[in-house]
Amino acid sequence: MDIIKPRIMKGTRDFLPEDMYIRDKVMEIIKGHFTRYGFRPLATPAMEYYDVLTGKYGEEGEGLIFDMAYKGGKEVALKYDLTVPMCRVIAQYRDKIAMPFKRYQIQPVWRAEKPQKGRLREFYQCDADVVGVKEVSADVEIIALITDIIEDIGFTQSKTFLNHRKLLTGLMEYLGVSAEDIPVAIRILDKIDKVGVEKVMEEFIQTGYEKGVVEEMFRLTETTDDPIKDLNKLEDALKGGTGEESASEAINDLKEIFRLLKEIGISRDKVIFSPRLARGLAYYTGTVFETVVEEPKIGSIAGGGRYDTLIGLFTGVDVPATGMSLGLERIIQVIQELGMMKEATGSVDILICPFGPEDVGASLKIAKEFRKAGISTDVYTSDRRMKKKLKYADRLGVGKVLVVAPDETARGMVRLKDMESGDEVEIGIEGVVEEVLAHLNKMSKD
Amino acid sequence: MDIIKPRIMKGTRDFLPEDMYIRDKVMEIIKGHFTRYGFRPLATPAMEYYDVLTGKYGEEGEGLIFDMAYKGGKEVALKYDLTVPMCRVIAQYRDKIAMPFKRYQIQPVWRAEKPQKGRLREFYQCDADVVGVKEVSADVEIIALITDIIEDIGFTQSKTFLNHRKLLTGLMEYLGVSAEDIPVAIRILDKIDKVGVEKVMEEFIQTGYEKGVVEEMFRLTETTDDPIKDLNKLEDALKGGTGEESASEAINDLKEIFRLLKEIGISRDKVIFSPRLARGLAYYTGTVFETVVEEPKIGSIAGGGRYDTLIGLFTGVDVPATGMSLGLERIIQVIQELGMMKEATGSVDILICPFGPEDVGASLKIAKEFRKAGISTDVYTSDRRMKKKLKYADRLGVGKVLVVAPDETARGMVRLKDMESGDEVEIGIEGVVEEVLAHLNKMSKD
Repeated sequence: MDIIKPRIMKGTRDFLPEDMYIRDKVMEIIKGHFTRYGFRPLATPAMEYYDVLTGKYGEEGEGLIFDMAYKGGKEVALKYDLTVPMCRVIAQYRDKIAMPFKRYQIQPVWRAEKPQKGRLREFYQCDADVVGVKEVSADVEIIALITDIIEDIGFTQSKTFLNHRKLLTGLMEYLGVSAEDIPVAIRILDKIDKVGVEKVMEEFIQTGYEKGVVEEMFRLTETTDDPIKDLNKLEDALKGGTGEESASEAINDLKEIFRLLKEIGISRDKVIFSPRLARGLAYYTGTVFETVVEEPKIGSIAGGGRYDTLIGLFTGVDVPATGMSLGLERIIQVIQELGMMKEATGSVDILICPFGPEDVGASLKIAKEFRKAGISTDVYTSDRRMKKKLKYADRLGVGKVLVVAPDETARGMVRLKDMESGDEVEIGIEGVVEEVLAHLNKMSKD
Repeated sequence: MDIIKPRIMKGTRDFLPEDMYIRDKVMEIIKGHFTRYGFRPLATPAMEYYDVLTGKYGEEGEGLIFDMAYKGGKEVALKYDLTVPMCRVIAQYRDKIAMPFKRYQIQPVWRAEKPQKGRLREFYQCDADVVGVKEVSADVEIIALITDIIEDIGFTQSKTFLNHRKLLTGLMEYLGVSAEDIPVAIRILDKIDKVGVEKVMEEFIQTGYEKGVVEEMFRLTETTDDPIKDLNKLEDALKGGTGEESASEAINDLKEIFRLLKEIGISRDKVIFSPRLARGLAYYTGTVFETVVEEPKIGSIAGGGRYDTLIGLFTGVDVPATGMSLGLERIIQVIQELGMMKEATGSVDILICPFGPEDVGASLKIAKEFRKAGISTDVYTSDRRMKKKLKYADRLGVGKVLVVAPDETARGMVRLKDMESGDEVEIGIEGVVEEVLAHLNKMSKD
């Protein structure tokens, strides 16, 4: 018979135990923070109806959606992100969901991209959103949450760049950009991170903006290390002009955010006013932010903002919402690359090695007692040479091996071997649980 | 603009927080046992290549596979179970995986079934398998593991019905069933649970088996409460006949299993020798078993067996393997129906309610300290009336509310309200963390 060639689709991944331990550990840390902040878990199906999925992104997203062949295609597809399904959930279970609804969601999403470095077809997203709070205090909670998570993971230096969509709108209006051109202008501005200020200024000019206007745009969006001063400056500059209305709402929001951040003790160098930050997605309506880790040098690791009109696609009524998406895959990748969280090996506490087949029963019996006592225990039940069994313990990083051999069990004894030192000690089968627990506790204290 | 109708595909489900808490709790318990038994986590992509997926089930499975429209369909599809992907993984990463490989996997799978009660299109499977151990001690470990999990979940009465595929083969051979007819005969036998002994006997006769042969089949497979006695009886009956070879290998395996189960103290009424048990899947080669919970009355909740040739589809060389699949969805459903695990509500420890907008900063500041101390804390930052805020606390089952009001904060005080008794007590902002921790500890002791 022909062998089936074992392989997986490019852009998807298997996670072997070594990967899973790190992944589980990181998710556990993140979930802990979500819970401490009062966020509650949600999960949605992998498949969604096509019109539900495309509502937000329109044609832009369609190319990235994995269609199912179900009923000829284009009826259902794999979910593309976690935000749209959450918006659908809000609309679908309005009576069941208490508002405000703070939800977190950690699930895989799928994108029909051409796979390349850092671009996957299946990856986990990790979102936290506050629905039903129009006040910026919710945005502040989101930013505080990100800061806590990043610090707890062990990334020491992070910065969150913060802006407001309405400030961008107001600024564009002030500069005379027409309403229909604003999305295009925002998309050009969004490239600053990638291509730099000069190239973006050039593109504006090539698109037809006057040099003077473009220069003013960049002059007005220069910042100092004092966001309140910068915001006041902008407020003054835009006063009386077109765009004042949008801008002043944004400026008030941002001032309130910086005031609250200061009050709760998030230091000024952690959150940076960045009036040129756009963030691509069309659905943002208020705050937008992006968090970058500088030590270790990772780059963007979280982003988000306010989207007060997206849920309305499903409800017909605007529902305020703000949230963030954490770059879970990037975080895990960096942790693995830097060899962080080495302790997350998942090794069992002890491996029991029966000397021969006739010792398997006694070994399983001891294993049962160990497990009952909370000691994670593996038993090497295959009939192999002891050398092979010890090699297995080594490979899996097991610290203690219990050898169950006939000569010793006849005397009511077993042998405990420390894999690191090689030391062996005989202990009685009677009381073997307490004895081994004592050895394990000693080890964890060393 | 038209509203997008919020809905999901039949046979798929959303899990709201109340569901998620139970699901997470159950999975945590199960994972705890897997870990204690030395099983290690694995995860594989949602999508697999079509030939990988269909290798095991052949045409039988094809109708149940959710195809992707990717490249015109039939190239990739959603995975149908967790066993085939694991077999692929074993073949694909042979150098990276230490043998024996004990792996567990908890992931969703998809089946293109017509949805009906208890039949879903997306559901979680929960598998544990031992790869690389040909000895039945591995099967014993799997059975012991199931027993532990079921007891820990709180299902008090369970029974595991155990048989061996080679015993069935030997028996059929003895009765003169030709080799190519054996799978059909096993499939008829497999219906006993659904239609009863008489109907199955009838079907055998209608299929063309002589009445005497069928009666002998059922006479030979009658059992007492002593499996060793039953096995000896079978051994004697089949001695010298066709089928002796297959049967005696099976009988030796089963005797060894019952001996080991006795030695590790799993009582005789927990594991029942069931020589008529078939289990539908074609790939089993040795032990087969099914675990049924009788109190509460749930029915089949786990099943599995040995499949020593399946991995060979990908490697070309047989690799022994045995394992089980736990009916996770059924377990969760019963837990929810019976109102078990009510404590898994995920409520925060405390909700902070600022009296007005000007108290939000102080509230967030206290929240930050609470969270740092491990107290899960929600803050009601929306500008609403206090009554509404307290109603939210009630709805989410939060036991303690901290009211932050200007009059009191001016005196350095806040108010702690017990939602159950309605009692309120003023406490100083200085030392509020210790004070609240004391109240929470007191509560958990009550």
